[in-house]
Amino acid sequence: MNELHGGDITGYRLRYGREPLDFSASLNPLGMPEGVKQAAVSAVADAAPYPDPHARALTAALAAKLAVKPEHIILGNGSADLIYRWARAAKPQRALLTAPAFAEYERALRAAGCAVSFHSLNKEQSFDLDESVLAEITPGVDALFLCQPNNPTGRLIAPELLNSILDACRRAGTRLFLDECFVPFVAGAKTVSRTPRLAEYPELFILGSFTKLYAMAGLRLGFGLSADTALLGEIALAGQPWGVSTVAQVAGVAALAEDDYLCRSLVVIETEKAWLTQALAGLGICVIGGAANYLFFASKHPALGDALARAGIMIRECAGFRGLETGHYRIAVRTRAENAQLIEAMREILFNQTDQ
Amino acid sequence: MNELHGGDITGYRLRYGREPLDFSASLNPLGMPEGVKQAAVSAVADAAPYPDPHARALTAALAAKLAVKPEHIILGNGSADLIYRWARAAKPQRALLTAPAFAEYERALRAAGCAVSFHSLNKEQSFDLDESVLAEITPGVDALFLCQPNNPTGRLIAPELLNSILDACRRAGTRLFLDECFVPFVAGAKTVSRTPRLAEYPELFILGSFTKLYAMAGLRLGFGLSADTALLGEIALAGQPWGVSTVAQVAGVAALAEDDYLCRSLVVIETEKAWLTQALAGLGICVIGGAANYLFFASKHPALGDALARAGIMIRECAGFRGLETGHYRIAVRTRAENAQLIEAMREILFNQTDQ
Repeated sequence: MNELHGGDITGYRLRYGREPLDFSASLNPLGMPEGVKQAAVSAVADAAPYPDPHARALTAALAAKLAVKPEHIILGNGSADLIYRWARAAKPQRALLTAPAFAEYERALRAAGCAVSFHSLNKEQSFDLDESVLAEITPGVDALFLCQPNNPTGRLIAPELLNSILDACRRAGTRLFLDECFVPFVAGAKTVSRTPRLAEYPELFILGSFTKLYAMAGLRLGFGLSADTALLGEIALAGQPWGVSTVAQVAGVAALAEDDYLCRSLVVIETEKAWLTQALAGLGICVIGGAANYLFFASKHPALGDALARAGIMIRECAGFRGLETGHYRIAVRTRAENAQLIEAMREILFNQTDQ
Repeated sequence: MNELHGGDITGYRLRYGREPLDFSASLNPLGMPEGVKQAAVSAVADAAPYPDPHARALTAALAAKLAVKPEHIILGNGSADLIYRWARAAKPQRALLTAPAFAEYERALRAAGCAVSFHSLNKEQSFDLDESVLAEITPGVDALFLCQPNNPTGRLIAPELLNSILDACRRAGTRLFLDECFVPFVAGAKTVSRTPRLAEYPELFILGSFTKLYAMAGLRLGFGLSADTALLGEIALAGQPWGVSTVAQVAGVAALAEDDYLCRSLVVIETEKAWLTQALAGLGICVIGGAANYLFFASKHPALGDALARAGIMIRECAGFRGLETGHYRIAVRTRAENAQLIEAMREILFNQTDQ
């Protein structure tokens, strides 16, 4: 099992000999849209030749959708691919990360030979980023990695604080790697994303994903945005020319037309998030963060993840995240029937536990 | 256009406004096998979750097929992905490459901060590797990159020379990166591949590809073999955990069952290679190398590639390869009708040329 991450369904199958209900990967609960599926299927017929190394059609469609220049876009084999490519291209000597944060930042930076230091987020402040980070953005720090909302905590960075961070980065000559992969799930996403400010801040690199939003993680497609075209050129050179498959390129174009699906998804997620939050409260569990399509909470049960796994449900045990102690969990927001199944299983585990 | 490589069909379409007949990418002329297509299509339905990060099913199937241990296999997002991952993981300080050779070796090594030197292959010797390379395999050389048969020259390394090279690498502590992506196309492939000697030579890394053999370049799937499991562990850490898409994994398993298709392919390729070689001779062109599914030749026509492109046919102009002067070309071996179309177009161009 890859203990750094959720979503290893094959590992679960091998261990438990059955199909899990997966709350450990934070994908759109409506599943892959029909239009994306059809596009991916049709693309197989054209997948004998090499993919377009410049992904021209998808780049043009994404530029139009996001209202950014095509030359400010780079595509990747999933957003995780771009974290590694960025680290190799930007070649930071020293980077500042939050703890906790998505584990791939640290892995990618260390693999690129970068020294990594950590700004600890405190449980007492619900793991919120506060102004104390500003003092740590100094000329010696080549890169700051932030995730908005943070994975796994589901907490948003206050807009004014993010403005101050951008200004501090500019003063210090620090690049800001801003992971917005979960922004589209946030209510009011349009005001949260920093994409409109891209051209103003060449030190800003925004990471985006198709994987989570369109439930197409198995196809691998992510993107990066920056006004620093020299950096994007280096990122392109930091790996093979054919990183994004033909299937992913064609599926991506189809995904960008899925406005209705997105609208429906956001309604389901908001409704179910409210339902789950209340149901968890009924189990005595207070949600710490849930700005995106997942909820983050603590539980006093010593092995909730294992107990749920035995009951057929995968959730994300967060003890593997630097800066989090045992007993923190992340669950995806899924459909009502699935959410109800999770809550029932948790009730049984927690009730049996208190009953003993 | 990506001038380092052939196969940029999208670039051709944009420039010429029509569909090309592509001889520039060396793919199996029979196209993607039906079984692989069906597997890829069916995999789309399971591509909402993340891919298996360990590609367990495909690794097991490939291990059985190649008679190697599963732990000696690493999979990649196309074989090109593994060139970059290898360079970052093995971290050679100095590498020796042939000139000419596949351009991605040099790109990947330089991106990983490696100094690169070149062993020149001589036109007078049909670009054959000879024993003079042995003296250059010294303890200061951390890695030697060889391609068997060489891309773009289509020339094989003599088996005894390759044995001597392996021994020289062992004595010098030099890793041998042996690209066997085109070996399955070679008549008598089983005796050419060094896979059976893998366990004996931990300094050996063999690169393999599904892309070319099964005409599935748009799906991206390659593999590496080595008995150096520590190195394979580093390669896994040198990039994201989900590099190989679900579609590629499932298609790969299906490809390994395509024995009939492979058998038919090799018959077509041998037959057509003979036909093309003779037809080229009829145009006054002598093939320099053709051990795999492509032919390499020189032509005195100053711009044969451009002229063919205007006639609707892409071939691989090799002036971009280090160590090759203008006037060298690589063409894939395709089906009879397509090969005849190429020869007709060449006849017209070369005839008009001499007529003027």
